[in-house]
Amino acid sequence: LAPVLAKKNHPVNSKIKKKEAKVVDFVNCDDMENLGTFKDGKLVMCRCWKSTSFPYCDGSHTAHNQETNDNVGPLILKKTAKK
Amino acid sequence: LAPVLAKKNHPVNSKIKKKEAKVVDFVNCDDMENLGTFKDGKLVMCRCWKSTSFPYCDGSHTAHNQETNDNVGPLILKKTAKK
Ligand code: FES
Ligand code: FES
Repeated sequence: LAPVLAKKNHPVNSKIKKKEAKVVDFVNCDDMENLGTFKDGKLVMCRCWKSTSFPYCDGSHTAHNQETNDNVGPLILKKTAKK
Repeated sequence: LAPVLAKKNHPVNSKIKKKEAKVVDFVNCDDMENLGTFKDGKLVMCRCWKSTSFPYCDGSHTAHNQETNDNVGPLILKKTAKK
């Protein structure tokens, strides 16, 4: 018998809006200062699909990385001073 | 014997900068118009970790979704007209 090989690719998302065919989110850069989660001059966006406040990062990537030996982290949108 | 249950959580990233402990990327919203990949008034950022132009989306989420029965898609940064 051939060994059962681990599947290389897995679903990334196990919980976010699973009834949607494709989860796409938008951030309007000009409106960043109006977003409730915007603080400290940056907006932290989840790329691990484990956040309870998706599409924003809530730090859940840390537990995900430990549990699955992964190394994912957020995309951080920085707003600089208006010119 | 208990059945072998599928692991619920898997690594999300199988190829991007695996030598880094955590992959974090930054976008400066005020500089969006200067980014080479910025076009059509939007910047499309990968959240499936399969793009060959990570951190930008190259459409690889479509094949990923089909192969793994997933539903992930990009984060789209939109730039509106300057006020
Ligand atoms: S919680 Fe998902 S990247 Fe931080
Ligand atoms: S290629 Fe990863 S979200 Fe599109």
